[in-house]
Amino acid sequence: MLEGLIVLERSGAPLPEQIYRAIGDAARAGRLREGVVLPSSRQMAAGLGISRNSVNAAYELLRADGVIAVRAGAAPQIVARAKLEAAHIEGAGDGLGLSKRGEALARDLRKWTGGRNGGQLEPGAPDEALFPADLWARCLRRVARQKFGPAANYDQVEGLPRLKVALADHLTRHRGVSATADQVIIVPSIQAGLSLVTNCLTDPGDAGFVESPGYFGARTAFAGAQLVTRALEVDDQGANPSALAGSAARLVYVTPSHHYPTGARMNLQRRMDLLDAARREGAIVLEDDYDSEFMWQGRAIAALQGISRGGEVIYLGTTAKSLLPGLRLAYMVVPEDLAVPLRQAQRNLGLRVNIHAQAAYAELIESGALVTHLRRIARTYEERGRLLVQTLRARLGDAIEIAMPMGGLQTVMGLADGTDDAKIAARLAKEGFETPALSSYCAGVKRTGLVVGFADATEKRVGRFADLLEGLIV
Amino acid sequence: MLEGLIVLERSGAPLPEQIYRAIGDAARAGRLREGVVLPSSRQMAAGLGISRNSVNAAYELLRADGVIAVRAGAAPQIVARAKLEAAHIEGAGDGLGLSKRGEALARDLRKWTGGRNGGQLEPGAPDEALFPADLWARCLRRVARQKFGPAANYDQVEGLPRLKVALADHLTRHRGVSATADQVIIVPSIQAGLSLVTNCLTDPGDAGFVESPGYFGARTAFAGAQLVTRALEVDDQGANPSALAGSAARLVYVTPSHHYPTGARMNLQRRMDLLDAARREGAIVLEDDYDSEFMWQGRAIAALQGISRGGEVIYLGTTAKSLLPGLRLAYMVVPEDLAVPLRQAQRNLGLRVNIHAQAAYAELIESGALVTHLRRIARTYEERGRLLVQTLRARLGDAIEIAMPMGGLQTVMGLADGTDDAKIAARLAKEGFETPALSSYCAGVKRTGLVVGFADATEKRVGRFADLLEGLIV
Repeated sequence: MLEGLIVLERSGAPLPEQIYRAIGDAARAGRLREGVVLPSSRQMAAGLGISRNSVNAAYELLRADGVIAVRAGAAPQIVARAKLEAAHIEGAGDGLGLSKRGEALARDLRKWTGGRNGGQLEPGAPDEALFPADLWARCLRRVARQKFGPAANYDQVEGLPRLKVALADHLTRHRGVSATADQVIIVPSIQAGLSLVTNCLTDPGDAGFVESPGYFGARTAFAGAQLVTRALEVDDQGANPSALAGSAARLVYVTPSHHYPTGARMNLQRRMDLLDAARREGAIVLEDDYDSEFMWQGRAIAALQGISRGGEVIYLGTTAKSLLPGLRLAYMVVPEDLAVPLRQAQRNLGLRVNIHAQAAYAELIESGALVTHLRRIARTYEERGRLLVQTLRARLGDAIEIAMPMGGLQTVMGLADGTDDAKIAARLAKEGFETPALSSYCAGVKRTGLVVGFADATEKRVGRFADLLEGLIV
Repeated sequence: MLEGLIVLERSGAPLPEQIYRAIGDAARAGRLREGVVLPSSRQMAAGLGISRNSVNAAYELLRADGVIAVRAGAAPQIVARAKLEAAHIEGAGDGLGLSKRGEALARDLRKWTGGRNGGQLEPGAPDEALFPADLWARCLRRVARQKFGPAANYDQVEGLPRLKVALADHLTRHRGVSATADQVIIVPSIQAGLSLVTNCLTDPGDAGFVESPGYFGARTAFAGAQLVTRALEVDDQGANPSALAGSAARLVYVTPSHHYPTGARMNLQRRMDLLDAARREGAIVLEDDYDSEFMWQGRAIAALQGISRGGEVIYLGTTAKSLLPGLRLAYMVVPEDLAVPLRQAQRNLGLRVNIHAQAAYAELIESGALVTHLRRIARTYEERGRLLVQTLRARLGDAIEIAMPMGGLQTVMGLADGTDDAKIAARLAKEGFETPALSSYCAGVKRTGLVVGFADATEKRVGRFADLLEGLIV
């Protein structure tokens, strides 16, 4: 009766599974109809030349699925309705589609002109070759054999205690942050931290400020949370907080130590004005300190959070620039009274970080290897930044305005007003350069230029970039 | 003039930073007033007995901060207003506080009775000692030295291509899932996947169904997204989908292969009814397949997603039960037309996974080591589950009803109706047992019992648990 229905493949899936699928498929397709009596497991095993255990296992699965009924002493019998399966092929895809909130979350505000994969001179992207792979591999090998208890299980959602302690100490000493371990929350990325805080501290329709020009990720996070986004204009003294007055904004996103993407540093007067204005409006300042650990000029400039003292600043930092974005390891320092609710929301949203990466990073901080590494990459990136700027200045002269970077991974090359920077960026993207138009970073007044990374700058690459630019703008 | 103002500590922070802080603090505190002229860097260096470079670096930082003005040929001069700092101490904490959305996200719906740290017989928690640490350490050491290109940078947000391919193949073969690599999205946890999908597919006020009894994480995710949550009652044939009819629900969360926490398997009829009802209501089914990889009975039972064929199911799986929650590595298989928008929202929310854990897991799948490991833990957990159930049956007899688990990490011990299970759970928690009341898992009809894990079951521990229970319920 079952001839041709069950064809066993000795090298295929486990035998019980093969039998289970063959009979289940046949029942659903109507080839085995309701009421059909199957051979006993003994008969079936003999017929197929396999062990009775395999057949019993298959029957148990079929019984659990409701395909067969098995009564003590009686042979199993098909109970499934043959027509069930057919009904499920039509109507595919109904009910899909994003909600209004989903549409907001899925908007992509990046204005990259080409494919980012392998784009040259891309801003914000570190050189993977500078990642200390051997050191990290040794750390990982060690920590993977350690037991972590609650942190490896479902507790301590906000991060490995050892890393929280190490980071609080490191950030206090090296970044002037005022932090205890209890204020530290480990998240997969600054973007994760922004989305966590934004969702927890605002409701749709609330106002938030971003810098202009500024980081697209902050704009995307605010748009995803359905905020009304306004612009703080940035000049060579950093973001100007005057627009905050009377805005009733809930959040203000800034990069005070090293503005993204221009590299400006916010001066003390503006820092104080910003903190004053934020407090007056009842706003929280989100301080993104993404790459200030490897400034080669003024590396010791203190974080805004350290001078605030009032709990109105949330500090965000990351290993993405100093080590590798793929580690997915970033951190926040939050006001004490927000630490517990943010942790609970973090658990709910699943914004958690691999335990071994956390432990390895703690080792790097504790051993001093991180500070050594930061010095090393600062030297390298300084050379590459200098190479980029000197080459472009020598080749393009007055047609551009480009500042020598004080740190980080990118700088801005200003172009004459009226130049179509988006068009130039698009032309460069076709040649493999991911150097987006400065205007695309502007939420307010448009500025004209290109944002140029130098983490991967080589003489040859920069020379080719200059060649192309000469043809486009001079 | 600067005597007593700058006290250098040779073993402290870098010298430029010490000078920068001392002068900055003094200016902000009013000890150095506007207009005060500082020594030249040469004089200052001589006075402090340090290099002129250190002083120059400090002056550069102070200038960038707007604390001093430096003009060519002239000595630096204090420009900061002394009163600025003082204003920033009062008013601390204003503007804090969660939004309505934040309150929803920060709600903790878990009904654990005690501290989870180190709780014994805790449901859902794997034994950390069974994590294949040596194998994982070797994998990590290898992959940490590899270059990943775009996946280690800011691209390929949805996961390492190699892992997506390996998972699509693995899930197709071992779980009956119908998946191409393009449908796979890697997230830090099933909770992360639930929050991503819930936020993308619903708006506040939409309806969603969860199983009752059921997984608190799904209820928390729905509550965090401000959904109206309704209950699908679960019996020994799994969740009953009849409540779906006419509900206009957007999401239905189920654990069809191994119900959490009772262990029931949803039969074929109900699976078909559920898919039908979901399509009629325009709902997406969230299939949580959290621990079905190590069933010892019926391990080959196929996923609901594999029989749906219509794209109305999102499948979720994880390494948290089979390996270690701390890896923060889980995965989803999503309908093709949702893959791109979900990826974009994933980028926005920062729900990304460590690259080395992804690569190591891909190695485990590709090499066959994962399947070997799954067999090994299935044997061990089967023994421990049997130990728990046999001991409790022998000791407590008719006072309880406890099913022999077919897989996973926990089972349910039913108690007589009218028993105050929450009180019993609280008493057990005081003795170190994290075995929550079954009633706390119920969103609808209350059921009475305890949810008991067995991943850490030993004769001694189970014996002590039985001793306590005898005193509490018999």
